[in-house]
Amino acid sequence: MSDTKPIALDAMGGDHAPHEIVAGAVHAVRERGLAVVLVGSPRVLYEALADHDATKEIPIVRAEETIAMDEGALASLRRPRSSIAIACHLVRRGDASAVVSAGSTAGIVTTGRLRLKAQQGVLRPAIAVALPTLPKPTLLLDAGANAEVKPEMLVQFGHLGSVYAELAYEIAKPKVGLLTIGSEAEKGNKIVKRAHELLQNSPGLHFIGNVEGHDLLTGVADVITTDGFTGNVALKTMEGAVRYAFSELRQTIDGSRMSKLGAFMQRSRLRELRRRLDAEAHGGAVLLGLNGTVVIAHGSSRAAGISAACRLAADLSAQGVVARIGDRIAATQRPHRLRTS
Amino acid sequence: MSDTKPIALDAMGGDHAPHEIVAGAVHAVRERGLAVVLVGSPRVLYEALADHDATKEIPIVRAEETIAMDEGALASLRRPRSSIAIACHLVRRGDASAVVSAGSTAGIVTTGRLRLKAQQGVLRPAIAVALPTLPKPTLLLDAGANAEVKPEMLVQFGHLGSVYAELAYEIAKPKVGLLTIGSEAEKGNKIVKRAHELLQNSPGLHFIGNVEGHDLLTGVADVITTDGFTGNVALKTMEGAVRYAFSELRQTIDGSRMSKLGAFMQRSRLRELRRRLDAEAHGGAVLLGLNGTVVIAHGSSRAAGISAACRLAADLSAQGVVARIGDRIAATQRPHRLRTS
Repeated sequence: MSDTKPIALDAMGGDHAPHEIVAGAVHAVRERGLAVVLVGSPRVLYEALADHDATKEIPIVRAEETIAMDEGALASLRRPRSSIAIACHLVRRGDASAVVSAGSTAGIVTTGRLRLKAQQGVLRPAIAVALPTLPKPTLLLDAGANAEVKPEMLVQFGHLGSVYAELAYEIAKPKVGLLTIGSEAEKGNKIVKRAHELLQNSPGLHFIGNVEGHDLLTGVADVITTDGFTGNVALKTMEGAVRYAFSELRQTIDGSRMSKLGAFMQRSRLRELRRRLDAEAHGGAVLLGLNGTVVIAHGSSRAAGISAACRLAADLSAQGVVARIGDRIAATQRPHRLRTS
Repeated sequence: MSDTKPIALDAMGGDHAPHEIVAGAVHAVRERGLAVVLVGSPRVLYEALADHDATKEIPIVRAEETIAMDEGALASLRRPRSSIAIACHLVRRGDASAVVSAGSTAGIVTTGRLRLKAQQGVLRPAIAVALPTLPKPTLLLDAGANAEVKPEMLVQFGHLGSVYAELAYEIAKPKVGLLTIGSEAEKGNKIVKRAHELLQNSPGLHFIGNVEGHDLLTGVADVITTDGFTGNVALKTMEGAVRYAFSELRQTIDGSRMSKLGAFMQRSRLRELRRRLDAEAHGGAVLLGLNGTVVIAHGSSRAAGISAACRLAADLSAQGVVARIGDRIAATQRPHRLRTS
């Protein structure tokens, strides 16, 4: 469909911008056959493209301002011509199909909400992250866009995640769990308890009940809904715990009296496993509920991660995720209209 | 000091009650030289003690009711003669030095608050869990007693945890971190942002600022304060992630072309590491802020975990943790009195 429109790639955001971002763009274009425009400082980007002999393959759109990695929401307001703002603008104008950025998450969320606006009926856009469960990922959302929520938002996050799971992982009727501190309906804080009631009565949603922290990686749910505070803490705790287990393990292996060859093999297998668990390989998080597809690549992304994020953005855009979410939200609101009319 | 008073051990709480609990009591008495009384059904406990030839070593205090593992707060009100209620009663009457239970956490918290009451000045008792950081554990609290908190409670949790860290780990000036979703002061929800301000101005507290989920296992803080909802989700997420990493790893090891001997060695080292990460080995969680020491052993505890929990309870009680918390809370309240008088 609109797949010929390019991905607008924020070339100035991320710990390894602009060189790894540009390298990722080159990979996405040459190896994945995607169309990409780089948004950022033309002089810098032209030079970086020249290193890859790619100045003729990838166009540049000028943006002289940048939101730094440690800047938050306010910077988005202060810098209306930042690379992420221009990338959003390209999508809004219909000149690009989706945005990819490895910049500051707070900056992307605020700029996205400001430039692309929330879709009609969407209370709050949310960040969905794919957790490395097998055979299919579990989507956790909100992973950090909304530190404060209302119960109704937790229900919507369930719907947003369901649409994503249907499109990206071809799950027919995604199972939705509510993250809380016990399996019984009355477990949790006030917001979660109310959300539990609403989820039980939300048409078109396959609510399986409460889930807990240890369920994030068991695949018991396809979609796990939570507020952005809890979701962000849980996600970072998970990343930290996996990193910790691996580092302890590496010491264990290195300290054991195995042959050098055996230890070498173990380490290479460990690396392989670690890659699979690595968030970057999944292409990053998706900001759902805006009038445009926005993929947030991990801040530490290198070329491979950026290229995977471009693939994810192109796929979601081609599958019409925005329209599908629009339909879904409209459907959930119909009974309300009936009741109030 | 009062070390001769026995530990009141709830023999009916836990997945493996009463047999593993009784076995744990026998171990604590014979191997650790502790004094223990078992609280529960006399007939059942006498038989279990007889299996160890220990009927003369360990007294039994009758409690005919039990709070089941899947029961929550309400059961505590309905069953005033439950084993956990009687155990609390023994401490209150001065007949026992501390309570140990592997029963339902909600049941223990509610019963403890009801029977032992919060210490003067303590807004809410909190559950402190020791995370397996090196060289010394990091204490996370609240790990689940309070799903809703006020900012002032988060400050008190910092003080409760500091006293625990000083006593149990001999840390002179424990570093206290506030769990949230970014390192900058303005990151988080409203309650956390206000708590950040209060923590900066709390006398006698060594506040090091915000910490995030990935800091739970790096040892950057000695004490991490959070609400019981977030803390519980983070703790279970951590446990689940470590379990996940190990299971993935076991498959990696079993699938590799190492000699059987090498694989066997690896597995035994893995088990060793896993034991260290196991919450049970630490003796369990401590409910701080009550007029009495209460240790919550893991629900799945077997004899070794129960015995370790008895050791922890005896040590904390001998060190006078209740009095030390009382002094500390009184000290934090003095400036307030000056200001208002």
